[in-house]
This record gives sequence, C-alpha cells and structure tokens, in this order.
Amino acid sequence: MSFSISEKEDTIIALATPQGVGAIAVIRLSGKDAIRLTNEVFAGKNLEEQASHTIHFGTIRDDDKVIDEVLVSLFVAPKSFTKENVVEISTHGSSYIINQVIKLLIRKGARPAKPGEFTQRAFLNGQFDLAQAEAVADLIHSDSEASHQAALHQMRGGFSGEIKQLRDQLIHFASMIELELDFVEEDVEFASRDDLKVLVEKLLRVVEQLIGSFDLGNVIKNGVPTVIAGKPNAGKSTLLNALLNEEKAIVSDIAGTTRDFIEDEINIGGVIFRFIDTAGLRETTDTIEAMGVSRTQEKMKSASLILYLFDLSDTDMVEINRDINKLENLGVPFVKVANKIDKANDQFISELKDKYPDTIFISAGQKERLDDLRDKVLELVNLDKFKTGNTVVTNIRHYDSLVKTRESLLDVLNGIDEEITNDFLAMDIRRSLHFLGEITGEITTDDLLANIFSKFCIGK
Amino acid sequence: MSFSISEKEDTIIALATPQGVGAIAVIRLSGKDAIRLTNEVFAGKNLEEQASHTIHFGTIRDDDKVIDEVLVSLFVAPKSFTKENVVEISTHGSSYIINQVIKLLIRKGARPAKPGEFTQRAFLNGQFDLAQAEAVADLIHSDSEASHQAALHQMRGGFSGEIKQLRDQLIHFASMIELELDFVEEDVEFASRDDLKVLVEKLLRVVEQLIGSFDLGNVIKNGVPTVIAGKPNAGKSTLLNALLNEEKAIVSDIAGTTRDFIEDEINIGGVIFRFIDTAGLRETTDTIEAMGVSRTQEKMKSASLILYLFDLSDTDMVEINRDINKLENLGVPFVKVANKIDKANDQFISELKDKYPDTIFISAGQKERLDDLRDKVLELVNLDKFKTGNTVVTNIRHYDSLVKTRESLLDVLNGIDEEITNDFLAMDIRRSLHFLGEITGEITTDDLLANIFSKFCIGK
Repeated sequence: MSFSISEKEDTIIALATPQGVGAIAVIRLSGKDAIRLTNEVFAGKNLEEQASHTIHFGTIRDDDKVIDEVLVSLFVAPKSFTKENVVEISTHGSSYIINQVIKLLIRKGARPAKPGEFTQRAFLNGQFDLAQAEAVADLIHSDSEASHQAALHQMRGGFSGEIKQLRDQLIHFASMIELELDFVEEDVEFASRDDLKVLVEKLLRVVEQLIGSFDLGNVIKNGVPTVIAGKPNAGKSTLLNALLNEEKAIVSDIAGTTRDFIEDEINIGGVIFRFIDTAGLRETTDTIEAMGVSRTQEKMKSASLILYLFDLSDTDMVEINRDINKLENLGVPFVKVANKIDKANDQFISELKDKYPDTIFISAGQKERLDDLRDKVLELVNLDKFKTGNTVVTNIRHYDSLVKTRESLLDVLNGIDEEITNDFLAMDIRRSLHFLGEITGEITTDDLLANIFSKFCIGK
Repeated sequence: MSFSISEKEDTIIALATPQGVGAIAVIRLSGKDAIRLTNEVFAGKNLEEQASHTIHFGTIRDDDKVIDEVLVSLFVAPKSFTKENVVEISTHGSSYIINQVIKLLIRKGARPAKPGEFTQRAFLNGQFDLAQAEAVADLIHSDSEASHQAALHQMRGGFSGEIKQLRDQLIHFASMIELELDFVEEDVEFASRDDLKVLVEKLLRVVEQLIGSFDLGNVIKNGVPTVIAGKPNAGKSTLLNALLNEEKAIVSDIAGTTRDFIEDEINIGGVIFRFIDTAGLRETTDTIEAMGVSRTQEKMKSASLILYLFDLSDTDMVEINRDINKLENLGVPFVKVANKIDKANDQFISELKDKYPDTIFISAGQKERLDDLRDKVLELVNLDKFKTGNTVVTNIRHYDSLVKTRESLLDVLNGIDEEITNDFLAMDIRRSLHFLGEITGEITTDDLLANIFSKFCIGK
C-alpha cells in the first residue's frame, strides 16, 4: 500500500465512529475538495463561504431526495487534523443513512479512505512526527490507565522530544567531523575526540535507558504476562474469579461505556495483568512439582510475574521451602501467596511470617485481603519509573531502531578508541542518525509508512 | 420513568456514538450548565466566551492529568437540538477515554442521561412534536429505503402537518358549538349542522385513509411477512439463497458501513421482505397439500404475501389448478412462481402461460429471471401510494389514536343525525380532538412520554 502523488491529492471519506446503532454517526472527509464536494450535496447554506471551525445545520440531498438532516463541521486547511480541508458530517446513527451519504459523496468524487490514511496525511503534512502518529492508534486501543498515559505522552511528543535532543547533539558533532573532512590536508580538529567520546557515552546511557524501558513499556501496552502456580487445590481459579469480579464491580457501569471484559485479563491499579494459559489452568494440574517438565518451566520463564499460591491448610514448610527454592532459581519475580487464612492454624501462620515476611495472606474464597495482593503485585511491576513521567518505549519498531542506534554508537566509540579515520567515523555517526531518524520519521521509506498505517482502523 | 422538575433542569451526559473501536467518539451534554461544566475540565480557551456553533481544540484534564486531546462543539441555547446549551466532545475512540471523560463530568455535576432524554427535552422545549420525536428513533433504526423515507417524512413534520390540519378544522367547529352553548337560551346556530356534517365526513375520509395506510406502514417498518409455499423439492431454499446472495452482491461493501444481513430478511427494491418460518422451511415439507393442517393455514393467512413455488418438471396442470384454487380462497395476495425453466418442456410452459398469464418463470438454481420476480413482488406490495409522498402511518400508537379518533368522529356524525344537544355534541368533538392531539403530543401524560422515550437508545 504505497501512495501515488495523485492518491495523495484525492479527497478521502470514511465513517469515523464505530459501526452499530448509536444516536449519531460522524462521516469524515479530507482533501482539497472536501468542502466543495460536501457543499454540492448540502442544502442550508453555502459551505464554501463559511469560516473554519464552524458548524452548520442542513440536509444532505441526492438531487431532490433528502437523505438526512445533518450537522456539518468545517475545518479549513491548514487548521485541521490532516492540515487539509476537513469536513465532519454528523448524521443520525443509521447504517442505511451512513451508507447512502458515503456512496453519494463517492459518486461526487470522493474516494474511500484506506486504513490510517487520515493520520498518514497528518504525518505527511507535518502535523506530527511518526512516533506521534503511531501513538494515535495506541491511544484508541488503550484500555488501562497505564497504556493510556503512555500513548498520550507519546502522542503529545514526549518521546519524540527526547529522540530529537539525542539527534540534535549528534548532528552537531557530525557536522564538525564532516567539516574536518573538508580540511583533511590541514590536520585540524574541530571536534575534540575526547568531547565526542563523552557525548557518545552520554547518548548511549540515554539509549540504554530507553531500551531498558521497553520491558515495562511492553507490559504496559500488552499486559503483564502472569502465571499462577500452585497445587491443584490451592485455589487458582477461585483467586482469578475473585479478582475479576471485584474489577467488574469497581468499573463504573455508565450505560454505553462499560468495556468488554476479556477473561483472564485483570486490571489492577491501572495495569493489565494477562494470565497465561489460565483456561488450561482450570483443569490441569500446574503444580510446582511439574516444573521439571520443560514445557511448564518454559511457560513460567516467559512470564513477567508468578503468583506462587499455596493452601495454608494443606501445605507444610518443607514443601514451601522446596517450591520457593525452585522459583528463586527461575529468575522471574514471584509473590508468595498463602491462601485460605480462614482455615489455617495460627502457629503455622506465625512460623511462615518469621521465615518469609513478604508472604501475602489471603482468602480467595472469602475475598479477604485481596488488596494486599494487589499492592504487592503493583510494587513488583515497578511502575515508579513510569509514573514520574519518564518516557517508556512501548513500540517494538522503536525498540528495534534503538537497538540499532546503540550498535552504531558503540561502533563510533570503538572507532574513537581505535583512532579510525574521519570518513569512517562520520559514516558510523550518520548510521546512528539514520536509526534515530527512523523513529520519528525524519527517515522513512514508503514500505515503512505503508506498514505502519495499514494497522490503523478505517476512518482514523 | 417520569421526570421531576429538578430532573428536567439537570445537565445530562451520554455517549452519542456507538460503543466499539472507532477513530472518534462523541460525548454529548445538554442543560443550562453544559458549557460551564465542560469549561471546568477543558484547557485551551474559555468556552463560556465562545459563540454558538463553533469548534474548539484543547485538552480534557482531571486536575493536572490530561485525559485526551479533544474537539469541543458548542451549541448555545436555544440554537441546539434540545434548545438548551449543548456541548459535543469529540474524543479519540477509546472506551477507556470515554469512560474517564464521562465520569469526570459526572463528578463535576452532570447526570447520566436516561434513554431518549435528549430527544424528550427537544420535544418538551418545543423543538418538534411527539410524532416527529418518535420518527427520530425510527430513522436511526431504519434499514431500508422505504422505512428510511417514511421516518424522514415523519421527522420532517409531514405526518404532523396533516394531523394539525384536521385538528385545526375541528377546533374551529368546536369553538362555534361551544359558543352556541353560551347562547343556549337564544337558540342561535353559529355552526351549521349541515356544514359540520360535511366537515366531519371529510375528516373521516382522511382518518380512514391514514388508518388504511397502516398496513403498508407496518410492512415498511417491519418488513412484508412473506411465505414461500411449495412442495419439498420445488426449490424454496435455493430461491431464498439466490435472492439473499444477489442482495449481498448489490449492497456496496464500503468498509465500515456494510449492514448486518439478517437471514430470511431480503431487501427488494428498498422494501424488506421477512420470510416467515424459513428456518423450518429448510427442513420441513411446507406443501400446499398440508394446508388442511390448521397451523400451516394460519401461518399463510398471517402473511402479506405468498410465493407459490412449483417445479415445472415435476408438477402437472391438475395439481397447479388445485393449489391455485386453494390459495385464492385464502385471500392473501400470491405470486405464481414456476421454477426450473431450464428443465421444463416448452409445450407445458406455453400451456401455463395461456392459462395463467401472470405466472413468473424463473430458475432459482441458475439465478435466471429473478428480476421478473422482484418486479412482480414489488407491484403487489403496492408502494405507489407511498412513493407519491402520501403520508403513511407506521407507528402503532398513532394507529390506535386514529382508530379512536374515527370512533368519536362517528359519534359526532350520529349525534348530528339524531339531533342530540349541543353539550353532548361538544363532548364528542372534544374527544376527537383529544385523540388527534395524542399523536402530536398536544395532549400528553407523563406515562405516555415515559413509555415513548424509554424505547430510545441512550445518548439520543
């Protein structure tokens, strides 16, 4: 899906609101003829004579036949999302009407928009950079506080700003080096190698930090992959159900806005925890003993968090010691969750508290002390970094570019140490600049753009 | 669901677009504080100082936390749908964001809207009458050309206009009669009984005509109940599938606007035909022979149209004569559909054409001549009346009121003939006025309003 010049000048049209029955629907047009085409089918006033950011009541007509009474919102270029002329037609929310209006405007000369084409035009016309454009799609699909904040921060240019700073510093240095190339026979040094080394090391630290944030960014965007491990009767599905039901109770049920609950995804304090293989978990015996089996071990290793759940009334200290020992060897953060406090003897509880003071005591069946578990789980996910407003990389494309940037920066560093010639040094710096530029779209290819925007929904 | 005075002054809020993932969502507020409340959470400019019908870019904030970048459309009372201050907030289409924005504004003092409450306020504030308000809901749910045109005609006041004319004429006469009551001792006659009789007879004709249009209106709104009758191998399900597949092929598949196809509902020339019991039809043997069975006969009688389908290669004239005779006795319009022309002998076809010239010859399997069938079917539904722009009653509430109006007009007529006293005559006229007034909402009760608007969707 790459665009020819003429395609870029078409006036495009699409439904911008979801399908289904609602009070209203919004049909969006963008392109130089958006207002003229709408005006051809609109009766009420001359839309071509109206100011930007104004709303006009009238009817959409196919010759004499009225299709609907509508409100038309006008955005005159460049004061619009795409920086082109944009029209939003607010119709009654009937799929019949939507279809008629879109077909009529296509007959008049508009073209159905491709997925993401409105946002792509906004990017191509300089409304925002590529990372910001990508954040628009993330924002629409965000379903938790954390993923929403990350997407919004990125859309509003937080991430792009950091990348830009890195690039600007490198560009400054690159230009010095390239200048030296012009005076190569005079053996001048505009850019001190020591200063360059300090700068590249500083850049590397920032890039490392961004790369490091991807683990967090990934769980923010896709949920924290979590495993509940325990013996068959430890209460695994009881715990899952208790957490899910309390979440449902917390989420307000303002009519028309409740989100779809996905089984085995639970929102805890604004972060989605994705419970792995919990369907199976309800039947099979995912015991710690089974950890010898490599498949089970692989699954646990792939998790970001393990809830080690045991039944206080049915587990002895020897067993617990052995399980915890195995879990510590795995290297995955885990929470010790002692279930069925209502059925445990005090002596055992107190022993356990002495030995493992960070144990969380709950009753999944009675829904008791689940808040302790939630707090502990959030603490382990370590959102502090995120909450202080630091940038978190959530996009795998950005992650890849950052990894490549790191590689070329390391090449630069080696080059300085090995005193390679300026032209090779300049090449390595340019390569770093290239990868950084891919993130924000200073450097793009048609394939890259097509790939990014094809993942958008129609109408965005 | 009736409203107290204070409820009527609340500022209400709801999602106006469908749930689900889309590029944008529109949240609507109405009430005297709509603009002030939105302004409290909006950063960008002071919304309370802006003109009506203008659009403003900014952010929605919960204290320091940005929830989204939005466009806010302002409609200052009385220049809005509800004639109150109205704000439409266009957000990114994420259910998380929608929920956050609505919750925030509820915390600031808005109240979740009840179903239909926006339209109800529009009615209560005189934006339109009750029949027009009801048409808004019909318009949203219309899924065919015919139902859409009927709803639009009604929403734009076509039906209300006719009712108003009837009422005005009656009111004029009623006032004359009531005037006579004041001068009862002087035995004057302001209103000529002969003139009154002519008027009431004229009104009756119009009311009868509107009542008569309900059969058509009902099929326009709910689809034409249709039965395909024929022997097991006549090709009933082949015919249904052929019609349905061609419809699907005709309907444009502009992404995001295709309507849901309901099995056994087929749109022919803008009218929905609802095939009765066709699920069963695919297995059972709905033969004409079975018509003796009262259940089958009842089903056929309840239909508005019967397609009598027979296999040309497997039916003789005796059988056809007998079936047609039975169908004629039913009194339901039916179409003779001779199937499998590709397998029939010419001699038989020509005999049949002589005997029953209105037979439609098709091949359901080859999808041949289905257009002939479509034309015939549309001819029988008799949409001519509708297409000339005549008012068609589609709402059973209106139908009921019209039937009651007819009864009281007949009472008036009898009263004149039997020379009853003026006070009784006046009472009958007032009763007619009452029932007519119920249609457009000049006469309402809280129960009636609650009943009507509770059927609306939220946000409308």
